[in-house]
Amino acid sequence: MKWEENVRKVEPYVPGEQPQKVNVIKLNTNECPYPPAPGVRDKLQRLSTDRFRLYPDTSAGALAQALCEYYKISTEQLFIGVGSDDVLSMAFLTFFNSNKPVFFPDITYSFYDVWAQLYRIPYETKALDDDLRIKKEDYLAANGGIVIPNPNAPTGVFEDVDIMEEIIAANRDSVVIIDEAYVDFGGESCLKLIDKYDNLLVVQTFSKSRAMAGMRIGFAMGNPKLIGYLQDAKFSFNSYTMNTPSIELGAEAVKDAEYFKETIEKIVSTRERTKLKLKELGFSFPDSKGNFIFATHERIPAKEIFEALKEKNIFVRFWDKPRIGNYLRISIGTDEEMDILVENLKGMVK
Amino acid sequence: MKWEENVRKVEPYVPGEQPQKVNVIKLNTNECPYPPAPGVRDKLQRLSTDRFRLYPDTSAGALAQALCEYYKISTEQLFIGVGSDDVLSMAFLTFFNSNKPVFFPDITYSFYDVWAQLYRIPYETKALDDDLRIKKEDYLAANGGIVIPNPNAPTGVFEDVDIMEEIIAANRDSVVIIDEAYVDFGGESCLKLIDKYDNLLVVQTFSKSRAMAGMRIGFAMGNPKLIGYLQDAKFSFNSYTMNTPSIELGAEAVKDAEYFKETIEKIVSTRERTKLKLKELGFSFPDSKGNFIFATHERIPAKEIFEALKEKNIFVRFWDKPRIGNYLRISIGTDEEMDILVENLKGMVK
Repeated sequence: MKWEENVRKVEPYVPGEQPQKVNVIKLNTNECPYPPAPGVRDKLQRLSTDRFRLYPDTSAGALAQALCEYYKISTEQLFIGVGSDDVLSMAFLTFFNSNKPVFFPDITYSFYDVWAQLYRIPYETKALDDDLRIKKEDYLAANGGIVIPNPNAPTGVFEDVDIMEEIIAANRDSVVIIDEAYVDFGGESCLKLIDKYDNLLVVQTFSKSRAMAGMRIGFAMGNPKLIGYLQDAKFSFNSYTMNTPSIELGAEAVKDAEYFKETIEKIVSTRERTKLKLKELGFSFPDSKGNFIFATHERIPAKEIFEALKEKNIFVRFWDKPRIGNYLRISIGTDEEMDILVENLKGMVK
Repeated sequence: MKWEENVRKVEPYVPGEQPQKVNVIKLNTNECPYPPAPGVRDKLQRLSTDRFRLYPDTSAGALAQALCEYYKISTEQLFIGVGSDDVLSMAFLTFFNSNKPVFFPDITYSFYDVWAQLYRIPYETKALDDDLRIKKEDYLAANGGIVIPNPNAPTGVFEDVDIMEEIIAANRDSVVIIDEAYVDFGGESCLKLIDKYDNLLVVQTFSKSRAMAGMRIGFAMGNPKLIGYLQDAKFSFNSYTMNTPSIELGAEAVKDAEYFKETIEKIVSTRERTKLKLKELGFSFPDSKGNFIFATHERIPAKEIFEALKEKNIFVRFWDKPRIGNYLRISIGTDEEMDILVENLKGMVK
C-alpha cells in the first residue's frame, strides 16, 4: 500500500497499566489516593446537560479565573490544555523550531523524546550523575530549548529554584520549560520567576495533587508573549479542547484551597513514613519530593519484586531500560495501601 | 528576544462568536438546538467524582463499544478524539507526509489550511464550480492526500457517495479523508466503503447531530491499518485525551438511537420549512443537507443583514472573504427560533 510511505511513523508511548480488576492496589501511575474536593461532587450534581449541546467556552473562563486567583497571575499569563501532556506537546511544537538540539535529562519523563521525534525536533539527553541529579553545567551549552522536570520523574529528586534560575538566566535565547507535575508535594515552584524571565514556561497538572487525572487538565504559566504564541498554536490546532465538565469541575477543585492543602499533607506524611519502612527492608532511593518513591533493593532485582507484587494485585511501575532497570517507581497511596505493600515486600525480601 | 526566532508562528483560527449574553438566538456555530438524550442526564447524576482521581480508560472503552455497536464496526476500525478537530488534525499529521500537495476545496471548513500550515504540509485548493459544487476531475491528479467534507461546509452541498467512491478509488496511493460532520442531516455516509478501500478515513463528530459540542467528541472509521497508525500518533502525543465524563456520557448519547433519529428529523423538517420561507424573502442558496443554510440575498448585502441581525441579538455566521463574502451561514435552530429569524429578515429585506 503506497499511502503507507507517507505515514508519520512513531514509537507509541506505553502508559502505565490500568488494571480493570477490582481490589487491586494501584501504585503505578502516580494518581492521588484521595478524591477531588467535595465541591466537585456538588457542582457535578448541578451541571445541566442541556448546556452540552453548546460549544464550551474557548477561554475556559471559570477554570482560568480560579487558577488566576489561586496563583495570583493574569489570564494573559495562563495557558490551559488537556492534561500537561497536551500543554507540553503544544509547547514543544510551538517553541522548539531551532536546528540546535533541545536538552533534557536522560532519565526523565518518557514523553519528551517521543514528542521530539514526532515533531522532528533535534534533541540531546544529558546524563544524570550517579546520585540521579541534574548536572547544571550540562545545560549551559548552545541549545534549541530546555525541558527539566522539577521534581524530576521518575527519580523524585528536586533541585533548588536557585539552580533552575541559573539555567534559565543562562539561556535567554531559548525557551526553558520547567515541568512541575510533582511540585506540590514538597518542592518549590519557579512561578515566582515568570515576571523576571520571558523565556520561562512553568507547566503543572491536575492529575496528581489535584486528584483529577480522569478530567485531563494541565496548565502553563509564563509571560504574556510566550503564552500568546502557545494560544495561537492551540487555536489553530483545535479551538475547543477543554470540555464543559472539565472547565466547571476543574474550577471547583481549585477553589477549595484548604482541601488541597490537607490532601497534600496526608500524601507527604505517608511518603515520609513509607521511606522509613522501605529503608528498614533494604531499599535505597533518592530523597523524593514527588508522590512516589524510586526505589532499588540491595539484593532482590526490581523486576522480580515488580512481578511478585503484581501476583498479589499490587501494581507499581517498572521500566526494563538502561540505568533504571533495577528500580521500581512506587506511587504513594493511602497509609493502609502502603502498609499492605510493606507487608508484602517483607515477605519477598526476608 | 531571540527565542522568538524559533517560535512556530501560525495564523490562529477564529471560531464563531460565543455571545455571553442571555436571550440571544444563536445560529452561528451549527450547534444542535435540542439537548442530548435523556440518558445522558441520568448517567451524569450517577457519575462518581471519586473516579476522577484515576486516569481515564485510554481505550475510551464504554464510548468505543457504543459506537462499534451502532455503526457495526470493530474497535480496530475506530479512532476517538477530542472533537473531530482533534481527529482531523491528528490525521493530517499522521497521513500527509508527502512532498506532493494535499487537495481540498477552496470553499470549505476553514481549519484545513490552518493544519496544513501548522504541520508544513504542501496543499492546493480546488475551486468549487459556480454552483458551489466539487469538480470530481480536480481530485484525479497526483497528490499527497485528499480531504473532502461531505456535505461540504459552509455550503451544505452533498455529493453522491458514488462520486466520492470514484475519487477514493482513483487515489489508492494516498489517504482520502471524508469529513462527515454533517452527514446525519440527510446525506449518506461513505462508511460502507471502508472495507473496500484501505485508503479511506471517514470522520464524524458528536458536536452537531449528537448535541454534544460541549463534550468534545469526534471519531474516525477506517481499516485497522489506517486506524493503527492514527492510534500510534495519538498515543505518542497524549495517551489520555478523552476524559471520564466524555467517555461515560458520550456512550449514553449513542445508546439512544431513537432519540437521535427524532432529533435529526426535527432539524431536517425545520430546515426544509426555513428554506421555503427564505426563498419567499428573496434569498437563494445551494440545497443544504447540513444543519445550516448558506444563503445570499438578491439585493441586500450579507454583511448588512449580518449586522442588523446582531443588533437584534440574532447571531449567524458571516465571512468577509473572496467568493463567499455575500453569503450568510444560518444554523438551523428550533422552529420558534427560525420564525423569529424570518420575522426579523422580513423587516430588513422589504
